[in-house]
Amino acid sequence: MTNTLEYNIDEHLIEKEPFYMAQSNEVEIGLTAQANQLPLLLKGPTGCGKTRFMQYLAWRLKSPLITVSCHDDLSTSDLVGRYLVKASEAVWQDGPLTLALRAGGICYLDEIVEARKDTTVVIHPLTDDRRELPVEKLGKLYKAPDDFMLAVSYNPGYQSVTKDLKPSTRQRFVSLNFDYPDPELEAEIVGRESGCDPGLSRKMVKLAAMTRSLKESGLPEGASTRLIIQAVKLMQGGICAVDACRAGVIESLTDDPELLEAMDDMITSLF
Amino acid sequence: MTNTLEYNIDEHLIEKEPFYMAQSNEVEIGLTAQANQLPLLLKGPTGCGKTRFMQYLAWRLKSPLITVSCHDDLSTSDLVGRYLVKASEAVWQDGPLTLALRAGGICYLDEIVEARKDTTVVIHPLTDDRRELPVEKLGKLYKAPDDFMLAVSYNPGYQSVTKDLKPSTRQRFVSLNFDYPDPELEAEIVGRESGCDPGLSRKMVKLAAMTRSLKESGLPEGASTRLIIQAVKLMQGGICAVDACRAGVIESLTDDPELLEAMDDMITSLF
Amino acid sequence: MTNTLEYNIDEHLIEKEPFYMAQSNEVEIGLTAQANQLPLLLKGPTGCGKTRFMQYLAWRLKSPLITVSCHDDLSTSDLVGRYLVKASEAVWQDGPLTLALRAGGICYLDEIVEARKDTTVVIHPLTDDRRELPVEKLGKLYKAPDDFMLAVSYNPGYQSVTKDLKPSTRQRFVSLNFDYPDPELEAEIVGRESGCDPGLSRKMVKLAAMTRSLKESGLPEGASTRLIIQAVKLMQGGICAVDACRAGVIESLTDDPELLEAMDDMITSLF
Amino acid sequence: MTNTLEYNIDEHLIEKEPFYMAQSNEVEIGLTAQANQLPLLLKGPTGCGKTRFMQYLAWRLKSPLITVSCHDDLSTSDLVGRYLVKASEAVWQDGPLTLALRAGGICYLDEIVEARKDTTVVIHPLTDDRRELPVEKLGKLYKAPDDFMLAVSYNPGYQSVTKDLKPSTRQRFVSLNFDYPDPELEAEIVGRESGCDPGLSRKMVKLAAMTRSLKESGLPEGASTRLIIQAVKLMQGGICAVDACRAGVIESLTDDPELLEAMDDMITSLF
Amino acid sequence: MTNTLEYNIDEHLIEKEPFYMAQSNEVEIGLTAQANQLPLLLKGPTGCGKTRFMQYLAWRLKSPLITVSCHDDLSTSDLVGRYLVKASEAVWQDGPLTLALRAGGICYLDEIVEARKDTTVVIHPLTDDRRELPVEKLGKLYKAPDDFMLAVSYNPGYQSVTKDLKPSTRQRFVSLNFDYPDPELEAEIVGRESGCDPGLSRKMVKLAAMTRSLKESGLPEGASTRLIIQAVKLMQGGICAVDACRAGVIESLTDDPELLEAMDDMITSLF
Amino acid sequence: MTNTLEYNIDEHLIEKEPFYMAQSNEVEIGLTAQANQLPLLLKGPTGCGKTRFMQYLAWRLKSPLITVSCHDDLSTSDLVGRYLVKASEAVWQDGPLTLALRAGGICYLDEIVEARKDTTVVIHPLTDDRRELPVEKLGKLYKAPDDFMLAVSYNPGYQSVTKDLKPSTRQRFVSLNFDYPDPELEAEIVGRESGCDPGLSRKMVKLAAMTRSLKESGLPEGASTRLIIQAVKLMQGGICAVDACRAGVIESLTDDPELLEAMDDMITSLF
Repeated sequence: MTNTLEYNIDEHLIEKEPFYMAQSNEVEIGLTAQANQLPLLLKGPTGCGKTRFMQYLAWRLKSPLITVSCHDDLSTSDLVGRYLVKASEAVWQDGPLTLALRAGGICYLDEIVEARKDTTVVIHPLTDDRRELPVEKLGKLYKAPDDFMLAVSYNPGYQSVTKDLKPSTRQRFVSLNFDYPDPELEAEIVGRESGCDPGLSRKMVKLAAMTRSLKESGLPEGASTRLIIQAVKLMQGGICAVDACRAGVIESLTDDPELLEAMDDMITSLF
Repeated sequence: MTNTLEYNIDEHLIEKEPFYMAQSNEVEIGLTAQANQLPLLLKGPTGCGKTRFMQYLAWRLKSPLITVSCHDDLSTSDLVGRYLVKASEAVWQDGPLTLALRAGGICYLDEIVEARKDTTVVIHPLTDDRRELPVEKLGKLYKAPDDFMLAVSYNPGYQSVTKDLKPSTRQRFVSLNFDYPDPELEAEIVGRESGCDPGLSRKMVKLAAMTRSLKESGLPEGASTRLIIQAVKLMQGGICAVDACRAGVIESLTDDPELLEAMDDMITSLF
Repeated sequence: MTNTLEYNIDEHLIEKEPFYMAQSNEVEIGLTAQANQLPLLLKGPTGCGKTRFMQYLAWRLKSPLITVSCHDDLSTSDLVGRYLVKASEAVWQDGPLTLALRAGGICYLDEIVEARKDTTVVIHPLTDDRRELPVEKLGKLYKAPDDFMLAVSYNPGYQSVTKDLKPSTRQRFVSLNFDYPDPELEAEIVGRESGCDPGLSRKMVKLAAMTRSLKESGLPEGASTRLIIQAVKLMQGGICAVDACRAGVIESLTDDPELLEAMDDMITSLF
Repeated sequence: MTNTLEYNIDEHLIEKEPFYMAQSNEVEIGLTAQANQLPLLLKGPTGCGKTRFMQYLAWRLKSPLITVSCHDDLSTSDLVGRYLVKASEAVWQDGPLTLALRAGGICYLDEIVEARKDTTVVIHPLTDDRRELPVEKLGKLYKAPDDFMLAVSYNPGYQSVTKDLKPSTRQRFVSLNFDYPDPELEAEIVGRESGCDPGLSRKMVKLAAMTRSLKESGLPEGASTRLIIQAVKLMQGGICAVDACRAGVIESLTDDPELLEAMDDMITSLF
Repeated sequence: MTNTLEYNIDEHLIEKEPFYMAQSNEVEIGLTAQANQLPLLLKGPTGCGKTRFMQYLAWRLKSPLITVSCHDDLSTSDLVGRYLVKASEAVWQDGPLTLALRAGGICYLDEIVEARKDTTVVIHPLTDDRRELPVEKLGKLYKAPDDFMLAVSYNPGYQSVTKDLKPSTRQRFVSLNFDYPDPELEAEIVGRESGCDPGLSRKMVKLAAMTRSLKESGLPEGASTRLIIQAVKLMQGGICAVDACRAGVIESLTDDPELLEAMDDMITSLF
Repeated sequence: MTNTLEYNIDEHLIEKEPFYMAQSNEVEIGLTAQANQLPLLLKGPTGCGKTRFMQYLAWRLKSPLITVSCHDDLSTSDLVGRYLVKASEAVWQDGPLTLALRAGGICYLDEIVEARKDTTVVIHPLTDDRRELPVEKLGKLYKAPDDFMLAVSYNPGYQSVTKDLKPSTRQRFVSLNFDYPDPELEAEIVGRESGCDPGLSRKMVKLAAMTRSLKESGLPEGASTRLIIQAVKLMQGGICAVDACRAGVIESLTDDPELLEAMDDMITSLF
């Protein structure tokens, strides 16, 4: 009765194995959760691999992965879908959640605590044994197919009091706690991702660890693995190591002159 | 005069008896309230069985059950209905409340205090002896059939001062207070729901009780029955007991390192 | 020039005499106010009979009664009316205020202080000697017929500072102060409404009075007459007196454990 | 080029001389302001005759009077006009300000400080020597005809800090300060409006004056002339004097038990 | 491709030389700024001649002057333009800024700090050497012709902390500081504008100066030149000097009884 | 399937080499970042050359440059695009971000911290190795071509606590810190931009430096290079040096009388 815009879900299939090095048994837990139709909650700091883990899991499951970056203004309609007017006719357009559900894929809500409460609540009936999504504007109740998976993430490090998951939401998930990889593993990741030599990757991991130790001194968050890979790329493009670490790492961490100076000393002690 | 989108109310009928073990005479009170056309207010913590109770009551009454998860942005139109434009014609679409009312079913507003005030107020004429719903946009006054029932729930444990039911709303309901089942009963529920052996289910209930005792130490809410069943499922999927309790229970309860450590000790003392 | 949706105003006529026992000369004052085209303001706690009084007054006047439960999001358009699009044509739809005005009925705005300021102000020209309603979207100025009456209510017991009627609004009304009926009368009301024996109704009235005395101890509001009638109905449905008073009265008054215990003692002292 | 809905401006003409007794030379100042195309600002407490003064002035000037009760949600479009869709065509509908301007009438914005800032600002170009109203949605600049007059009012007694006229707005007006009439005059007004005997009207004026003296004791505002006329009408309808003063005057002034008792003593001392 | 509503820009041409007496070299600076395509920022108290200065500058430049009174709810679309639906077709309508830009006129944003931030920011690309206005809804980038000028004003006297121009906005303007004219000049202006005799105009200027000296005593702002001209007009219409100064000046400055009394003494000392 | 409004992207190509004098190796870093598909974050005070740097970089890269001035009300749709109704058909219109992405150009979000959170978040998938933009309303996932570049800027000098980039956003960028050029270079820039003699340009740079030293005394920000060039242009138009510095520089920096006096002394010490 209602016309629906058709999407090409295959755009969301991950065809090439993503590079992912497991830190523990998180892959097994993720697969078991999916097999038992339990939703997943990923916790951890910026750039420690949560998104990459989801890509890897999707590749393992051969499932399309639809990622939604959550924010203050994300409404229920943005997730579930809405009507558009085409040639004087209302045409229904699935939102990313409905799309993933109907295709039996994975819907990954990144930084869920940033979303408005209605977004957090709309997933409730999908995360208990009902496994259903009422799409009120269509007057339909979608039942999730067995292979549909819901995953959400957030960063416990800088949540404010007003932005927190309610117990009634949290207690619906299997939760995985992510952290930065240990130095050995991180150096290997940097080397594999950038193609740089082991000496440089170890130096960069040392720099990242130093910045992470500044958290007590007021730095909101230390350098992520992504950030040090980025600095290596600047070096490979011809920028000298010190300038590459300044532009690629430390200026991206803070504007505080004292913290910047402390980190500058770290850089010059390394290069 | 107005075209209306027709819904299939039968989707909301509960065909199979839901597993529910009564804690007291709550089922009799629920049935008596419905017979006397009194609305129901369920109070209690997360995951203690309020939703399951409603499913069981609906099954007993052979009534369709339409559940609405309330949230900050839930508007009156979301409950009562709205016009959609189809082929240049405004077509009326019932909301879940109107749908339940016209079908003589049960409308269950989960976590009602999360809703905006207009949602709370729209149910007033349905909850006194008028038993009517003015649908202003249709210019109609629906009279509730005798078998229509309204139920609402909320969690008194973490209500803020700004989010509370006004006396003029509360005093319209028969109120049932739910709590976690006692250990014997909870172990039986875990066993029946997960199919695990009595030894494991008793251990898991012990773990849940331990976490619930942490409420004075700052844990917002202890583990629900649902959460410990989830951990058992992870174990059945091959995850070792300690990891399953971490991912399936305690990481879903808090991000606080000290509370997590305390609960980790509980797990290792049990397994 | 403008198409208007026609309503069936007769739905709002009260055909059967509502059960109402006057506490004082409020009925005479109400009738005199209507005869002199003065609007009415009803003040008093939850469930003390304000709505029933309006139903009785409407029945006496043979006037349709249109009740609007006010809330935060009630807009001027919700009261006055709006355009709907039907077959590419804007069709005007009266709001409840316009509807009552054109039919010469009674418009009763329940809990007026909950409404937004624009709602409170839109009634100003209707409440002084102009007796007119400018409907700006129609470009019309409706004159109220002589039998049109406006009534509003609110509960002075739990108004916040931010939600109060401005003097310029208050000073437009004849004001009636309602309170709980005295015990004799209340017991008679309970008996008449529930059909129970005088012994039980007197006990229930005693219970209600006890709860009302807890206001100084922090209970927002004592049990209304409606609430004790509800508990009697549960008893008549087979629930034992203590459980019926718990579910039907005290759990609907508060979640505070100490207040609940105090009221539980009251119940067991009575039954 | 644009279709416009036509209004019947004559609805707003005041045909019968309104009863108005001048307190000072306010009528002359009002007429001189209009002759010099200066806008008017009326200040004073509730019910002291500001609206009646405007009606009288309009009658003297043979000008239509269009009154707008200002409130929080009054938008510029509500004053200036907006497009409506009629048969797939946007039709322009004048707002009350544009309507008054085009007809050379009086636009009276009652309680202007209640309006949003954009409403206050939209009148700026009308209140200096430009005397023009840019109607941006029509792409037109209306020049006010010589007989157009703008008047605004507010009550300095209960303005909050956040709701005040900015100097750049105030300094555009000729300002008239209104107060309650002196007792002689007020008694005459009460007598003329209600038809009651001089003895009663003097007693009622005494009661009003007593309530006005309670302002220091916390009463937001004393009884207006309108309020005591209303009580007289209740008496004329058969309600005894004491009850008429209670329902018609003091219950409309406050809910404070002590103030109510104090005023009750006033009533019984008079009747 | 897009239909556009055509405006008659000539409505905004100032045909008669406006009366303006320069206080310093502000006219030369204004003309030089326009010749160098630099935008202008006018600072100063209410009614000191900022608007008149802009009218004079526009007359000197033979440029149409389009004035926008800024306020809280002024959106980008209000300035830049929007689509209207006409006969099922979206027709573009220029806003005042786009209109002035396309006609090579002057756009004057009065009290810019009252506007929302998006209004303040939309002028950024017009105020540096880009001199362009991106009209996103048209998908066009308008280049300002050489004779286009942007001017803004604000009153530094009563800006709150939250309403201030950001440095990145301020540093785009040539700034002119306006103040009340000195007494000689002001008396001449009053005489020229009202046609009154020099004795009266000097007295009125003295009154204005007296009120301005009350700023330390808590008067938000002293009488503007406009206000004293207004009082003279009331006198010319037959109102006695004292009443004309009361209604025309001091009641428009404050509601504070003490300040009013102090200013009343000033009036009686002069007349 | 969807009609799209076509834009002329060539309007955004910078044809003439912009005047830009590098302060360090920022150009090389910018080019390397673009070559490695890393997004760029520019930090620094008002008018220190960030925008000019982007123009120069765009010219070097022969890429169209689309600049968006961010503000409080900038929504995701403003960046990504929206539907417009044309002849009863919804026509898609690219926003500046989508436009730049599809053309392989540079999208520069000026003062990104002013934007709403949803704007900040919508760029996340474009700034990691996904390099994709989900356009939910089109149901499409745009992959960024290799030459697409995203750049953002902000001024760390006056960010409030509530307006800051989250670590999860910052850590996606290569960051360049800009400051005022050193005196020699700044004098050269002033000379080249205005054509004035070296003596004047050095004096003006001295004035700028003096104002910048007032930051500790409460001046929010010192004079930018742009501001002193503007004052030179006023002089070239015939305004005397002192007046040109007053109108062109210091009145644009503050309204504080003491700071203005201090800066006035600076001017008279120089000229």
